Amino acid sequence: MSPARRQDRPGEFEVIARYFAPLAAGEGAFGLLDDAAFIRPRPGEDLVITKDTLAAGIHFFAADPPDAIARKALRVNLSDLVAKGARPHSYLLSLALAEDWSEDWLRGFAEGLAEDQRAYDVVLLGGDTLKSPDGVVISITAVGTLESGTMVTRLGGGSGDLLYVSGTIGDGALGLMVHGGAPGAAAWPLSDADRSWLARRYLLPEPRTALAETVRRHAGAAMDISDGLLGDLEKMCRACRLGAVVHIERIPHSDPVRAVVSRDRGMLPAVLNGGDDYELLCAVRPEAAGAFERSAAAAGVPVSRIGELTKYARGVSVVDDGGETVPIPTGSFEHF
Amino acid sequence: MSPARRQDRPGEFEVIARYFAPLAAGEGAFGLLDDAAFIRPRPGEDLVITKDTLAAGIHFFAADPPDAIARKALRVNLSDLVAKGARPHSYLLSLALAEDWSEDWLRGFAEGLAEDQRAYDVVLLGGDTLKSPDGVVISITAVGTLESGTMVTRLGGGSGDLLYVSGTIGDGALGLMVHGGAPGAAAWPLSDADRSWLARRYLLPEPRTALAETVRRHAGAAMDISDGLLGDLEKMCRACRLGAVVHIERIPHSDPVRAVVSRDRGMLPAVLNGGDDYELLCAVRPEAAGAFERSAAAAGVPVSRIGELTKYARGVSVVDDGGETVPIPTGSFEHF
Repeated sequence: MSPARRQDRPGEFEVIARYFAPLAAGEGAFGLLDDAAFIRPRPGEDLVITKDTLAAGIHFFAADPPDAIARKALRVNLSDLVAKGARPHSYLLSLALAEDWSEDWLRGFAEGLAEDQRAYDVVLLGGDTLKSPDGVVISITAVGTLESGTMVTRLGGGSGDLLYVSGTIGDGALGLMVHGGAPGAAAWPLSDADRSWLARRYLLPEPRTALAETVRRHAGAAMDISDGLLGDLEKMCRACRLGAVVHIERIPHSDPVRAVVSRDRGMLPAVLNGGDDYELLCAVRPEAAGAFERSAAAAGVPVSRIGELTKYARGVSVVDDGGETVPIPTGSFEHF
Repeated sequence: MSPARRQDRPGEFEVIARYFAPLAAGEGAFGLLDDAAFIRPRPGEDLVITKDTLAAGIHFFAADPPDAIARKALRVNLSDLVAKGARPHSYLLSLALAEDWSEDWLRGFAEGLAEDQRAYDVVLLGGDTLKSPDGVVISITAVGTLESGTMVTRLGGGSGDLLYVSGTIGDGALGLMVHGGAPGAAAWPLSDADRSWLARRYLLPEPRTALAETVRRHAGAAMDISDGLLGDLEKMCRACRLGAVVHIERIPHSDPVRAVVSRDRGMLPAVLNGGDDYELLCAVRPEAAGAFERSAAAAGVPVSRIGELTKYARGVSVVDDGGETVPIPTGSFEHF
């Protein structure tokens, strides 16, 4: 069922040997000569495992630089690990290539992975390659480690817990609009540098690895914000069977996002519901809040207290400084 | 970027709650309410991890029964674990649904997974769902366990090792031709029952879980035969930096495959190079052969000695009983 191979491109075995085997330097991966790999857990450690798939036209643009596509695919998975308090360890990669793939593209893709393997201290363990009739699809399974029994879930929040987010919210959503040439974005009061910065926030999220230990020690519940702050907070509420109040003035925004929203308050729902921020959302017991904040500061990551979990499971309320409800439609990205 | 949802179908959260959460009964999966799961290794055990992706139109037919598609996707991964000597433990699922998916299809898919979870004693740990413009794509990461340091690789064969295969070879290749209505298959001297049996061998491979312990204790190298006996043996030879001789008369075939090849010897390359058998290929030191055979017999799985690994890395030679080379083109399935 395999069509004739284009003679100017390497075959599957050469591709694996040339581009992916060098990424599989760990002892359990056997240089990708095997179908499977082993992981030797350290005594007293659990493994944390997560799997996220990115598809061209849905999670990235087919014309994005291949190294950025590769790095984003890896980073969104590392972000999930960090939100559980885990240290990234390794990953498996399933890469579906479109019919028209080129060796240049593949080289860039592998170089992006190599760079982020060094940055995040992870190794490739295995995976597979296939062809995709309709565009590149990248499915990564990432593995992390942590002390046994210490994984932080979305379920562990309690009524009265304080809600924190890392970094700034909405850069990913506006970055997508800038990068994708959305109508209206050209009129935003932003410099070229601002636009590049926002686009980069969308293209290359930065998993908050420096916060993993802070999350593990001090958060009751945590998750990364991948599908929009309000929708993801709703998911946490549902998992905890609690509600939440968010104080809109406390939600941290970058200068470019503030500038856009000041000009056009109609962008606020996009900023609060748009995906691709990959910041962390943490629920912290009030008595642990001081330690959480000090630990985050020591890690060099800004965190902002944006609200609290509440007793009754009535979803997420957004309020202003006067306590008045701000009507913001919430809704998370649906993946199909 | 998400189109309006068809109102007659459940949304992503309902799909997960209704069809997949019931499959995630293990302690580390949190009923799929989290993005990640944990695995608590038992002291002294390694984890074995593998990842195989199946796509409609490549690895199965879009019109195949959804429960069979699900079971095959899981089984090909379990087969990889068993070939390493590992006991299946759990899996993660990435499911890309075509635009026209129906709830009936999804229900059948989940029922297939449920049935095989019981049959193979594995649980769903997590994963994700997305849409696929071009047809269903299923990427599964499977996790197994074994005593630390005992994973059997493809690399561990030695010169003089005896080569064994489990079961029969070529059923998958001819089953695909029967099932796919390949030209010529209608003329084969087979009963309807034979045809159904072959098609089923293609649709529903049976991972040789009963042999995992035999492999782990007695094989020096092992792999499952997913891309054709001769091509997969070539991969083992390359990994071991050895050659191999295969005695063609010793390769075990089912009665239907024998009947087809007796009528048309031109089918032999397809039988020996075709994929989808999911039998095991093992290299066993001569002094371990007796124990290997007894262990397989005790497990109730037929194994056949088909040849041996040889010192010089000149690929795979196929010979007849007189020692004459049989010219059979070898070549494994290329995945892109």
